[in-house]
Amino acid sequence: MMTISVIGLGLIGGSIAKDLKTQINVEVLGVDLNESHQKQALELGLIHKVVSLEEAIEKSAVIILAIPVDKIESLLPLVLDKISGDTIVTDVGSTKVQICRAVVNHKNRSRYVAAHPLAGTEFSGPQAALSHLFVGKKNIICNREKSDDSAVETVVKIFKSIGMQTYFLSSEEHDKHLAYVSHLSHVSSFMLGLTVLDIEKDEKQIFNLASTGFASTVRLAKSNPSTWSPIFLKNSDNLVKALENYIDYLHQFKEAIKSNDHEKAELLMKEANDIKRILN
Amino acid sequence: MMTISVIGLGLIGGSIAKDLKTQINVEVLGVDLNESHQKQALELGLIHKVVSLEEAIEKSAVIILAIPVDKIESLLPLVLDKISGDTIVTDVGSTKVQICRAVVNHKNRSRYVAAHPLAGTEFSGPQAALSHLFVGKKNIICNREKSDDSAVETVVKIFKSIGMQTYFLSSEEHDKHLAYVSHLSHVSSFMLGLTVLDIEKDEKQIFNLASTGFASTVRLAKSNPSTWSPIFLKNSDNLVKALENYIDYLHQFKEAIKSNDHEKAELLMKEANDIKRILN
Repeated sequence: MMTISVIGLGLIGGSIAKDLKTQINVEVLGVDLNESHQKQALELGLIHKVVSLEEAIEKSAVIILAIPVDKIESLLPLVLDKISGDTIVTDVGSTKVQICRAVVNHKNRSRYVAAHPLAGTEFSGPQAALSHLFVGKKNIICNREKSDDSAVETVVKIFKSIGMQTYFLSSEEHDKHLAYVSHLSHVSSFMLGLTVLDIEKDEKQIFNLASTGFASTVRLAKSNPSTWSPIFLKNSDNLVKALENYIDYLHQFKEAIKSNDHEKAELLMKEANDIKRILN
Repeated sequence: MMTISVIGLGLIGGSIAKDLKTQINVEVLGVDLNESHQKQALELGLIHKVVSLEEAIEKSAVIILAIPVDKIESLLPLVLDKISGDTIVTDVGSTKVQICRAVVNHKNRSRYVAAHPLAGTEFSGPQAALSHLFVGKKNIICNREKSDDSAVETVVKIFKSIGMQTYFLSSEEHDKHLAYVSHLSHVSSFMLGLTVLDIEKDEKQIFNLASTGFASTVRLAKSNPSTWSPIFLKNSDNLVKALENYIDYLHQFKEAIKSNDHEKAELLMKEANDIKRILN
């Protein structure tokens, strides 16, 4: 029997717990400061048992931190302080540089595996937890060389058991790439939502007209601010740069439209079409 | 037998033709300058017959213009010049002000019904045509009072027969609203695609990390520039205003992130969450 604790029973932690709990010979313990989350996680069958953080640390072979990235950064060193020799600690945070920096000189650094399973929805909390959320998706492990090989192997195996393939990157590469392919998308969607809501104040009828295209681009604006605000702030250098690039393109396009420059507008769109190559 | 001609056999025209062709007692004629589109439309069974524009005008009870908005604007007056008393002309253009303005004093204005069925995908051409694309979607008719009641009634019936409910707006309201709930989404997506492609030039690995969130926000960047460039230019005043609002919000957010202003960032996101209310 392998005992795995999930700290934080929201969308991601809850979904991991739910899939692990279906496996034979795995005991899933859950930790959450929020009592209604504890209750929901039990009722929804996401975990076997609610325990305290202390009990989780004491009893678990693997501890998975699935809380907001700023909370991971502050809790991770404290957890590493208390683990015994064999325990493995991993996390699911969407940023990795600052979390890794917080434990870079920790005596138990080698027992920590910095992970980021790339999956999610725009919903949050234990009730948003889904079975099979991770199937066919990618997991990233950062700064692999800082972790014991056996710890990396176990974490890869755990993520594989819920359907993920693991890739390896430095935490710097990870955060830079994620700024573009995830964090920027979220900001663009949040701000699109705000822009359209502003118009709605005067024009009640506007949402009768909302198309499926709008629904698609604005979907992420439903995401949880408590999750995303720390992600954006912990990856601010990369995200600010991505946003500056994005705003610059929007300016160029706006000027093309304003000056009736058909060719320039079409050229920009044709270049953007190249995204087809990537999204297959 | 009612004969309906569809001028332009792309995604929208082709999809309308395909659904109408399944109905008993309807003959669907197709007009397209592109010979390979003509051939595909016949092979795909979207239409009964390819005809010339002249033949379509002569034989049809209803003519549906499904070509880019700038082409609708130039062709519509010529078609209205040639129709006989009973013929109805309608269109599917995504902008309405300038199209309506082009025929405002035309002697046959009352036989034209300015329509915009709100549906589509990011694909284009006859092969992108889909059955049931319009089911449960909304159709807008603009400046209803300029059209004969019987013509409006027939056009409403045609769109109803392919699954759409019709709403009525002025062309000015239509274009303003669409700038926000459709055109802005497309620009935001095209520019997001460009921004991320820029990074890919240096960082080949980046797309390994592309998440479902990214795929959702960037989907519209695959759309056809030849369709969308005229839409953006024909609705430039509204779109430029929408883009300015959007860029302003992006700036505000960027500054909040840059100055580590957690509260401001979270406040903006919480306000954006209100979009849930609208998207149910």
